[in-house]
Amino acid sequence: MMRELKWSPAEKKAAKGAFDLAYERELRAVRLEVEAMLQRGKDDQVVWEVENYLRKKRREMDEKYDYRYSVLMMVFLRLLHEGWLAEEDLAGLSADKLEWIKRSGRIFGGN
Amino acid sequence: MMRELKWSPAEKKAAKGAFDLAYERELRAVRLEVEAMLQRGKDDQVVWEVENYLRKKRREMDEKYDYRYSVLMMVFLRLLHEGWLAEEDLAGLSADKLEWIKRSGRIFGGN
Repeated sequence: MMRELKWSPAEKKAAKGAFDLAYERELRAVRLEVEAMLQRGKDDQVVWEVENYLRKKRREMDEKYDYRYSVLMMVFLRLLHEGWLAEEDLAGLSADKLEWIKRSGRIFGGN
Repeated sequence: MMRELKWSPAEKKAAKGAFDLAYERELRAVRLEVEAMLQRGKDDQVVWEVENYLRKKRREMDEKYDYRYSVLMMVFLRLLHEGWLAEEDLAGLSADKLEWIKRSGRIFGGN
C-alpha cells in the first residue's frame, strides 16, 4: 500500500501541519528537560550531561523527522507511538491513510 | 628552560590547585552562559545553539586542560591570558617559574 499513496494538496497541508506540530512538541520537551537537568544539577559538570543529551536528541530528531512522502506514514506512526501526535492531529488525512494508521497502530501495540 | 623544570611535591600540589580552580571557574562560566542562552531564547530552537556551544566548549576545554608537566606552564600562561587564573593563584610555584610567567605574559601582551 505504501508506495501507491497519493497526497492531495489539502492532505499535504494537513500532513505538514501535523509534522511541524510534533516537532515543536518534542523540541519543547527537549528544552524543558535541559532546563530541569540544569536545575537539578548542583555540580557544574551537569553541562556535559546536557551536551550528551542534546547530541543524542539532535541525532535522533534529525533521523526521525523525515518529510519525504515515501516514508511519511511510517514517521506518523512513530510519532503517534511516541506520543508526539494524537490521532486527531491527523484528521486531515484521507480515510484510507487513517484506516492504515489505526490498523498499524494496533499491530504495534500502541495507538 | 621548559624541559628542565623540576616540580617539588608542594609545587605539584599548588599547580594542581590552580589548574582545578581555573577549570571550575571556566565550567561555571559555561553553565551561566547556557542558562543565559536559554533565558534569552524565546524560540525552542535555542537548544541547538546550546548544543553547538557546548560541543565547541567541550572540545576546547578537553584540549586546553592538559595536566602533563611538560606543557603545564604553557597551560598556565593561556589560563592567565584568558582570565581564568590570576598571578596570585600561582603563588605556590617556584620563583623561576613565576618569573618566566611574568616575562612571557608581557611578551604575549596579556598578564
